[in-house]
Amino acid sequence: MHLGAFMRPTTIHTGAWRFPGAFPDANFNFTHLKRFAQTLERGCFDAFFMADHLAVLNMPMEALQRSHTVTSFDPLTLLPALAAVTERIGLIATASTTFEQPYLIARKFASLDHLSNGRAGWNIVTTSNPDAALNFGQDAQMDHGDRYRRGREFYDVVTGLWDSWADDAFLRDVEGGRFFDPARLHVLDHQGEFFRVRGPLNVARPVQGWPVIVQAGASDAGRQLAAETAEVVFAGGSTLADGQAFYRDMKQRAAAAGRDPAHLKILPGCFVVIGDTLQQAQDKRALLDSLVHYQSGLASLSIAIGHDASGFDPDAPLPPLPPSNASKSGQQRVLDMAARESLTVRHLAQRLGGYAGVAMVGTPTMIADTMQEWIEQEGSDGFNVMFSDLPAGLDDFVGQVVPELQRRGLFRTAYAGTTLRDHLGLPRPGNRFFPA
Amino acid sequence: MHLGAFMRPTTIHTGAWRFPGAFPDANFNFTHLKRFAQTLERGCFDAFFMADHLAVLNMPMEALQRSHTVTSFDPLTLLPALAAVTERIGLIATASTTFEQPYLIARKFASLDHLSNGRAGWNIVTTSNPDAALNFGQDAQMDHGDRYRRGREFYDVVTGLWDSWADDAFLRDVEGGRFFDPARLHVLDHQGEFFRVRGPLNVARPVQGWPVIVQAGASDAGRQLAAETAEVVFAGGSTLADGQAFYRDMKQRAAAAGRDPAHLKILPGCFVVIGDTLQQAQDKRALLDSLVHYQSGLASLSIAIGHDASGFDPDAPLPPLPPSNASKSGQQRVLDMAARESLTVRHLAQRLGGYAGVAMVGTPTMIADTMQEWIEQEGSDGFNVMFSDLPAGLDDFVGQVVPELQRRGLFRTAYAGTTLRDHLGLPRPGNRFFPA
Repeated sequence: MHLGAFMRPTTIHTGAWRFPGAFPDANFNFTHLKRFAQTLERGCFDAFFMADHLAVLNMPMEALQRSHTVTSFDPLTLLPALAAVTERIGLIATASTTFEQPYLIARKFASLDHLSNGRAGWNIVTTSNPDAALNFGQDAQMDHGDRYRRGREFYDVVTGLWDSWADDAFLRDVEGGRFFDPARLHVLDHQGEFFRVRGPLNVARPVQGWPVIVQAGASDAGRQLAAETAEVVFAGGSTLADGQAFYRDMKQRAAAAGRDPAHLKILPGCFVVIGDTLQQAQDKRALLDSLVHYQSGLASLSIAIGHDASGFDPDAPLPPLPPSNASKSGQQRVLDMAARESLTVRHLAQRLGGYAGVAMVGTPTMIADTMQEWIEQEGSDGFNVMFSDLPAGLDDFVGQVVPELQRRGLFRTAYAGTTLRDHLGLPRPGNRFFPA
Repeated sequence: MHLGAFMRPTTIHTGAWRFPGAFPDANFNFTHLKRFAQTLERGCFDAFFMADHLAVLNMPMEALQRSHTVTSFDPLTLLPALAAVTERIGLIATASTTFEQPYLIARKFASLDHLSNGRAGWNIVTTSNPDAALNFGQDAQMDHGDRYRRGREFYDVVTGLWDSWADDAFLRDVEGGRFFDPARLHVLDHQGEFFRVRGPLNVARPVQGWPVIVQAGASDAGRQLAAETAEVVFAGGSTLADGQAFYRDMKQRAAAAGRDPAHLKILPGCFVVIGDTLQQAQDKRALLDSLVHYQSGLASLSIAIGHDASGFDPDAPLPPLPPSNASKSGQQRVLDMAARESLTVRHLAQRLGGYAGVAMVGTPTMIADTMQEWIEQEGSDGFNVMFSDLPAGLDDFVGQVVPELQRRGLFRTAYAGTTLRDHLGLPRPGNRFFPA
């Protein structure tokens, strides 16, 4: 089983900064972030996985001003710092193919891979947030097809630049005075629809050959791109059945693309709330949700049901919904959630304003049971864990859930290798210009 | 006196990787780079200053393959890692206004400033290397005027984004549930000749208000931009008289721009070769130069004199030069250097292929004398030191020259403050949108 820690760079739950014992300033306090990464490394996590956004989040101000996720460090600035204070844990940074330049991205990830001794991963995203476009001189977001074609070409350029130098290009022959062998240097000279990039990269080939390629494609185009290029997929998922369907689909697509399906790891995100008893875990989640301001929860609820919810009685169940142009399946998900847990409008709003994706709420044993079931039933190859609160939720996971997974033989008790590829059981890519 | 260490990320001398005791792989070995930064910090240096290039250097292959400067880490990836293993030393990264995006650069430097607790500096450069243009989809370099106008606008956008949040914007009011005060947030909405950037930045205002602004303008446009915006100028310089003229000119331009000239620090680059005796230092430099391959030295010599030097007798003095279209002053500099030190063609070629700028070659006392003279005669406010070889040249400077400067009361014996602005005696800029 593989475990990533999905960090933003703290927790994704918008009420968590108010949780008792939380560090409200964690997203700008390196001392805290270093502590989190070092604890995860003690827990043998495969990777610290950093999400990203290229704008202040486009929520209504009423919600925005109440969320600690409004700001966060640039991942490619934070992760090198974490690399210097850790030894083994992988470091996955999100970087957008929509607004970045491939030469710069290739160089930054190659640099991170060298200075971490082979622990870098690149979460390739395309950016659809219109607020981000406005920060890069564009009036509207690029259309979905263009974004994906650009993303694919961006990937081709970056991986081509990583292959600029053969692994043995740098002779460093002190006696003879030759630093590198010109015959082991390739000039890419890429000319495509979106980019013209000559190369070569001014950094040696990464320690891992290429940093690990991560994606989170959900659409058909996104799944196909991931099946062809990704080595780790961050899946959304909801139920085990949904997870199994996604898992099967992705492994089949990878095989159809001529790849070994074992070299594509499916790691759904999962929000974990740990208690000594189920009741305690449920109470903890209820407390966490109650820290989401009702006004910001209402904004999320209104978006999810496609209808202004501000007139509803907060302490009553959700009333019958009028027709709307919200997606039918999205609306149904909200109705199901409300029914399953008998949530009032207030609770539902706060759940949606906090975090409403896949959650595992219970004792360490129950959480390990669920994780084991997903792995054994081919729902996933592991998880990208989102902690309920920091530091306690993370400390509890490493102190209580990890040992339980280890006792069952489901998770490593020590790192066997040194690179992120080692941790994930992924092969080192050959150099396309200098085959072995 | 202020001291920066000018790193690329090792030494600039192209033969230095072959010097006895040098680490030939230092530019890809974080263990070595960490050692250098920590030693500089023990020596109370103001800053680790990292140069940069956005392409493999455009030298002839005969020279290129013999230089360790062909590759280097991305500065904004290396410096966060060094921030995590140091406490006080400033960290200045070079970043180009020609090929980067202001939103990304503003965010990276703001992130570095936060995670280093206020130690970041930005060396603003425009990029004229045509090989770099080819890595960014451009067939030719941007014209000089455009580059400088774009650089100025880039600076305006970045500093404007740094001011997105008032210093007290983040309330983190756990009880009341407000993370920030919307009234203390400014949307930049920049629309200019080169950029349209809406903002706000998704990182809090930097610890230093703004990271320290560094420039190296030599042309008239470059000097004027530096006088208006820079807080540290990396000067080329050659003789003390040249240095004094530049110093006077820059301080006057700063005053004319309405600034306190004391808030513009002039730090020329200077290459330092240390010996127990003058003879030993000169021998060391001769050995260093001899490690530059003659063929690569010849390429540098030919460029400097504007004439193919490959037919000259390597062991004879420079013959009379035919007319050329090389700059007259450049050619004269070479002739003067050859005459002053009675250099043969071979020695001259190797000097130019190694490093031919301002150098201080001698005992620690002699080097301290020269530095003292520059400071007292208003030639500079300090230096950006380039070490002859690593680690020994750096260790010797910190172990022998720094104590001599300290004995004379010219240099700090401990850091008085915590930020790079503290070290340099620079004020913290106010927020243009939220005046105190």
